[in-house]
Amino acid sequence: MDEPIFKEAPAVRAAADVRMRGFSHRATVQQVLAWLDQQPVTESTEMVATIQAAGRVLCDEICSSVDVPGFDRAMMDGYAVQARDTAGASMYNRLPLMIVGQSLPSVGFSGEVQRGQAVRIMTGAPLPAGADAVLPAEEVTAEQDRILASGEVPPGKHVGRRGEDLRAGAVMLRAGRRLRPQDIGLLVSTGAVSVPVRRRTRVRIVSTGNELLPPGSLPTGYQIVDSNSSMLTALVVRDGGEVVAVDRVPDQPSEILAAMRSSADIVLVSGGSSVGQEDHAPVLVAEHGELAIHGVAMRPSSPVGMGRLDGRLVFLLPGNPVSCLCAYDFFAGRMVRQFAGLSPEWPYRQELLPLANKLVSMIGRVDYARVTMRDGAVIPLAIGGASMLSSTTVADGFVIIPADSEGYPAGHQVRVYCYDGPTTAVP
Amino acid sequence: MDEPIFKEAPAVRAAADVRMRGFSHRATVQQVLAWLDQQPVTESTEMVATIQAAGRVLCDEICSSVDVPGFDRAMMDGYAVQARDTAGASMYNRLPLMIVGQSLPSVGFSGEVQRGQAVRIMTGAPLPAGADAVLPAEEVTAEQDRILASGEVPPGKHVGRRGEDLRAGAVMLRAGRRLRPQDIGLLVSTGAVSVPVRRRTRVRIVSTGNELLPPGSLPTGYQIVDSNSSMLTALVVRDGGEVVAVDRVPDQPSEILAAMRSSADIVLVSGGSSVGQEDHAPVLVAEHGELAIHGVAMRPSSPVGMGRLDGRLVFLLPGNPVSCLCAYDFFAGRMVRQFAGLSPEWPYRQELLPLANKLVSMIGRVDYARVTMRDGAVIPLAIGGASMLSSTTVADGFVIIPADSEGYPAGHQVRVYCYDGPTTAVP
Repeated sequence: MDEPIFKEAPAVRAAADVRMRGFSHRATVQQVLAWLDQQPVTESTEMVATIQAAGRVLCDEICSSVDVPGFDRAMMDGYAVQARDTAGASMYNRLPLMIVGQSLPSVGFSGEVQRGQAVRIMTGAPLPAGADAVLPAEEVTAEQDRILASGEVPPGKHVGRRGEDLRAGAVMLRAGRRLRPQDIGLLVSTGAVSVPVRRRTRVRIVSTGNELLPPGSLPTGYQIVDSNSSMLTALVVRDGGEVVAVDRVPDQPSEILAAMRSSADIVLVSGGSSVGQEDHAPVLVAEHGELAIHGVAMRPSSPVGMGRLDGRLVFLLPGNPVSCLCAYDFFAGRMVRQFAGLSPEWPYRQELLPLANKLVSMIGRVDYARVTMRDGAVIPLAIGGASMLSSTTVADGFVIIPADSEGYPAGHQVRVYCYDGPTTAVP
Repeated sequence: MDEPIFKEAPAVRAAADVRMRGFSHRATVQQVLAWLDQQPVTESTEMVATIQAAGRVLCDEICSSVDVPGFDRAMMDGYAVQARDTAGASMYNRLPLMIVGQSLPSVGFSGEVQRGQAVRIMTGAPLPAGADAVLPAEEVTAEQDRILASGEVPPGKHVGRRGEDLRAGAVMLRAGRRLRPQDIGLLVSTGAVSVPVRRRTRVRIVSTGNELLPPGSLPTGYQIVDSNSSMLTALVVRDGGEVVAVDRVPDQPSEILAAMRSSADIVLVSGGSSVGQEDHAPVLVAEHGELAIHGVAMRPSSPVGMGRLDGRLVFLLPGNPVSCLCAYDFFAGRMVRQFAGLSPEWPYRQELLPLANKLVSMIGRVDYARVTMRDGAVIPLAIGGASMLSSTTVADGFVIIPADSEGYPAGHQVRVYCYDGPTTAVP
């Protein structure tokens, strides 16, 4: 693995050193992103049934094993004819042709169309031998056993040629493609039973804290419900991952370490990410692996950490729900998406809109400001701390204020990342 | 049910009348949308485990059953104190306070903080009785059993008050909300075990045609693989529906009718939607229900039909894969989304870009033109018919040309609906 690009960042030298001290140095968001972009991305492949592969990312190019269509066929309902037999036909010059049979999808006509003959044919049915065009039903008056052609067709008219959609061996879809509904249709039509796709990013969530009750509990006394694991699960699924396990562990270093070392592509630890006496995870990652980042100049989420343990990426997310969401969005989600073969960029819809009120920030840190939108203007939510999870449910989205900015005046055009994008139901 | 708004549209008067005749009249796209918007939307509710409810649509407003937080708590690591004890403290005037205990999350401090005392406290831990502020660890020098405060805090500083995020009884989320990851977190944190959401739209897919092989087959002879049902399944899942069954039936009226009458909110029939001799579905809907629309002035998909049978919506989609996709996008998807509580509008990302080449269309019909995008310009795909499913996989999206337009010259700004949006994996 590459050496971290900024060695001054980690404040963890020895376990005792970090307790109740505060962060001696905070990395910039850009430094963190640069570190993340140096991390190797595991590209695992699995075969998935084509009919279940929508939304998955192809690992290889896929070639058609057959011609599509597999035979010359009619593109209209009408009559298969020799085109030259219709030369000069019009409403005023109806030309008679004998009906000698019919061609239906999957059955066809076994004979050969001769001059002066016509075979009734349905859309999609095979073009009989001898015929070279389809005269549409609309240009025909049908009688008992003959038709009167009132229109002219050139050779090839209304005929779909074998292989004109796809030739056997032709590349249908390329590696990296996120499969769309119509891609599934195309693959199925050529007989592709399964396709090689990126395995979903396998994410382990470790929720730490003696105070945590499992989801589905009512908060009681001084205990709170572990809601971060449920929020993170939905985020991971949205980003192409699957949660292989949620481990809820007390503030015990041995239990936290064991959970962090269990199988996964990426480990998300929620809670205990800071420098307090019960913040064990950063110390453990520093002792047993590499704590590359601890403390970032941003708000919320400044007590976020990340590093590597047993070769896997570990993100130490603040227990505070808003910080947890923000830290996931900025850092962890980027890697979950990339392991799944998706773009590292945010999956949020963007809007450029003017600020209704001024939006203040502090030089030296990146701000993740929750906002609402009304009447085409952006209203910053006036929220003190990072504790208000309801601020992220009231918000329509967020605005990023870079570290070198003190914020923006009313009327300034800002980019809003909207929270209302499609979210996948957790299976 | 309301009377159809345009009685002249349906061309089906008697079964025999429509066979091999062509459409005597085509409805406009606007007329079809107006008819659809008059159809009742079933609003069924089901209770779903909160942790699996991301992406689902709430049926009721949800109120918090508890205060969040449930107790006054520290927002920083530090010391719980009486704020007045810190008055005048600075780096040059360190004020001593006796450490009398600690407050950890879920445990707390059982005593009461007196004047001159401090209780070591962690973020999220309950504020002990007697204390009214938290002095951050950074503003303290800790000794054996006392601290020296080097900073001043006012009452309430770094304290999260009970109920400041949410009061018991307060509305957290309103009906109609599509649940986001952070909404799941908020619901779980208040102890909501399950939530009432719109039931997924229950869609039945009926694939008709003697020539059809099931997905997973290789096309052989004159038989083709039923790929439309796989494409439609992915589209339905994307739009908040679930496919309750895929019925593959031969071109037998009794079997088609039986499949169309089986349970579902919405029935999508693929194939046999036109006016040919084997196009049974329109005749059956006209005979046993109401065929409100048959034939629409658009390309592709003109032989699309829709109506009601046994009180459920039935869409007759052309078997041609491109027409099937287009007809789903224009008409069926709109209703699948609405039954699921989602917006009727297209889920496609939009881009406004200039045309690289001219885009021609015919007055009197709506065109669904597949396009690619390169170097910020839109390139129409030169495709003859509607048969090329590969045209929809090569395309980056589509442009709609209204019925009153002959198309646009090169350089004209057009709105592209992009196919690359998120697509959910079919479970």
